[in-house]
Amino acid sequence: MTQMLDVLRGLRSITATPGRGCTRIAYTHYEDQAHDYVWERLRDVPGLRRVHDAAGNMFVVPEAPVTAGHPHVLIGSHLDTVIEGGWLDGSLGVVAAMHVLSQRVGLGADVSLVVFRDEEGVRFNTGLFGSKVFAGRCQPTDLDATDGDGVRVRDVVPDPAGCRDYRPPVDPSVFLECHIEQGARLVTREKRVGMVTAIVGIRRFALIGTGSANHAGTTDMLRREDALVPVAEIVGRLPTLVEGIEDAVITCGRLSVQPGAPNVIPGRVTAIVEMRAQDESTLDTIEQRLRGLVDQARGSRAAEVELQPSVVVPSAPTDPEVQACLEAVLATRSIPFDRLASMAGHDTQQAGQRCAAGMFFIPSIDGVSHNPAEDSRYEDVELAGDIMLAWAEACLARCS
Amino acid sequence: MTQMLDVLRGLRSITATPGRGCTRIAYTHYEDQAHDYVWERLRDVPGLRRVHDAAGNMFVVPEAPVTAGHPHVLIGSHLDTVIEGGWLDGSLGVVAAMHVLSQRVGLGADVSLVVFRDEEGVRFNTGLFGSKVFAGRCQPTDLDATDGDGVRVRDVVPDPAGCRDYRPPVDPSVFLECHIEQGARLVTREKRVGMVTAIVGIRRFALIGTGSANHAGTTDMLRREDALVPVAEIVGRLPTLVEGIEDAVITCGRLSVQPGAPNVIPGRVTAIVEMRAQDESTLDTIEQRLRGLVDQARGSRAAEVELQPSVVVPSAPTDPEVQACLEAVLATRSIPFDRLASMAGHDTQQAGQRCAAGMFFIPSIDGVSHNPAEDSRYEDVELAGDIMLAWAEACLARCS
Repeated sequence: MTQMLDVLRGLRSITATPGRGCTRIAYTHYEDQAHDYVWERLRDVPGLRRVHDAAGNMFVVPEAPVTAGHPHVLIGSHLDTVIEGGWLDGSLGVVAAMHVLSQRVGLGADVSLVVFRDEEGVRFNTGLFGSKVFAGRCQPTDLDATDGDGVRVRDVVPDPAGCRDYRPPVDPSVFLECHIEQGARLVTREKRVGMVTAIVGIRRFALIGTGSANHAGTTDMLRREDALVPVAEIVGRLPTLVEGIEDAVITCGRLSVQPGAPNVIPGRVTAIVEMRAQDESTLDTIEQRLRGLVDQARGSRAAEVELQPSVVVPSAPTDPEVQACLEAVLATRSIPFDRLASMAGHDTQQAGQRCAAGMFFIPSIDGVSHNPAEDSRYEDVELAGDIMLAWAEACLARCS
Repeated sequence: MTQMLDVLRGLRSITATPGRGCTRIAYTHYEDQAHDYVWERLRDVPGLRRVHDAAGNMFVVPEAPVTAGHPHVLIGSHLDTVIEGGWLDGSLGVVAAMHVLSQRVGLGADVSLVVFRDEEGVRFNTGLFGSKVFAGRCQPTDLDATDGDGVRVRDVVPDPAGCRDYRPPVDPSVFLECHIEQGARLVTREKRVGMVTAIVGIRRFALIGTGSANHAGTTDMLRREDALVPVAEIVGRLPTLVEGIEDAVITCGRLSVQPGAPNVIPGRVTAIVEMRAQDESTLDTIEQRLRGLVDQARGSRAAEVELQPSVVVPSAPTDPEVQACLEAVLATRSIPFDRLASMAGHDTQQAGQRCAAGMFFIPSIDGVSHNPAEDSRYEDVELAGDIMLAWAEACLARCS
């Protein structure tokens, strides 16, 4: 068993749900324990020290001070998980960074590791919190987000004020991350690496139907203002809105009906519609099509239908220079790869606000993720570590 | 103010939600209080006594024993309500029966009044419970129905065993009920009375979509098994299934999506579809059309879709002889009326299992019901009392 697999298995055992995948919710004992485990495993590597920032993000940095202006590569990911998630999501990127650090020992104070907090956003219904703080973009509303028990983000971070007025422990020139794909494109295309060209933009809308709750027997069909029928018509046609568009998806994952009795006509319906695409113009196209459906429903039905934007995450292209470094590494080794957009959000998109950033994927077996069955081939896990090392060195060489 | 309106106003004041309509949930203090109020108001009428049956239904019967085989008319309705319901639903029928009793005083021991328990079915998610017991059709499952606090029907009725092995306090030859229409057909057609030819049959189905919950970003559109899309397609087309069919409605009033997160593809969806029509062959037609839609969705989508029957209430025609008596009464008085099916369930359909039964409606202003705004014109309320009296007399004459 290699070092990387050994560490990954150690992390897998830190879970609130033994036997049912990894459950390390952000800012719990389990996440803390995983952070500590990573530092324990790096203790023998000479010349490193551990520091924490205001958000509780963990950095492992050179003991020698990093000279300002000198090329410096930051590598990392996250260790929090969804509920009953997989063992590689986040962990792979951290362990690959550990591999780089342990190989770079003595080669100069030019590489650091970061473990971001609360990437998944399960607990506070947010996401990418730690990396958002690192990017210097933390808003008061981010700190006020509340979990199911009424605990706020500001109650669990080490230094809420410092999250807003942020000073990073290192000032990198480049941030690099590797991650499992979580989809099946690489497997389908028989590629070993996916070079991430952009992280998708996300637009989320509340599609709201407003009608009139009434007796489902005595209110005849012509006198109804059924809030559900027009919303259902639209939801049933969502897949048509992204037909023929590559790397774009649209989903309604939540739909609530009020009052919700079998014998009462729905008076109010809220459906959450989420679209993802790799650039803003594609998102514009899909949004326009959705608005077309809404206008159509509005014209043909008695109930009101409206679309309220809720979440907007702009698409985030990765840095072309950093991509070029990766491409050179892959070409030298003749590794079959493909360019693709990441369909999920990642810390890279936040880190890219502070410095040049890049990312690659290794294949997910069967495309499964956020699930105890999540897995990748061992040789791909090891390859990830090797590529990260070569990529970091290529970036340092290019920056120098 | 007439006697009937006075009693109706007295009943209106018995509510758990003063200022927000009538809330007298079955087998609560409020329902009991309404029963007692009715008896209080009848105390001065000589020759009457009150009895309760095993379900707690209240009967006001002649003090003199009713001779078996002699014509006897039972008149009544219910006093329980939905949450924040109207003041006439149920109460009108009880108060009209009180009017008949007070007018018939001394005319012979041939009329009784009944107030059925738990017509609305809000508390135990059932309906027509008291009249079902009276019909001799109470099943063990009816007694095991549970409210939100875990209380069972058998815990609240006076005599659970007696509900199954039922002996009615009177053995009527005819049951008569009047009620507000709760719809807008009479208002639209400018009729003062609706003669109920049948009470609609109801078929309720669980429309279940089973797919695979997965990441809404990384699972591309072609690899999805989205449980919501096919169900939404069907729900959006439900109104087309009853197009061109008179007195038929179809509704989806409840729809739940699992796991229900905006960024997770729905893995399981359950929609409750309810259809109502005045006869079984019409229900067959609508059900067939619904199954056609389900088959279509099954063929075109990756997720499984199935239809599971849950509730079946057969349509219940009223008695033609009892209808004829009503028609004679209305013709003599030149009251404009229409024949129609009741689109809601009523105690009459249960009572009709024990004896001949009939029912009429008066108009509901704007068709509003199950709502604090529920109302009817005062002259229509009073007309209901007069018609009930004449109708009871006509039935007695016909039976003799």
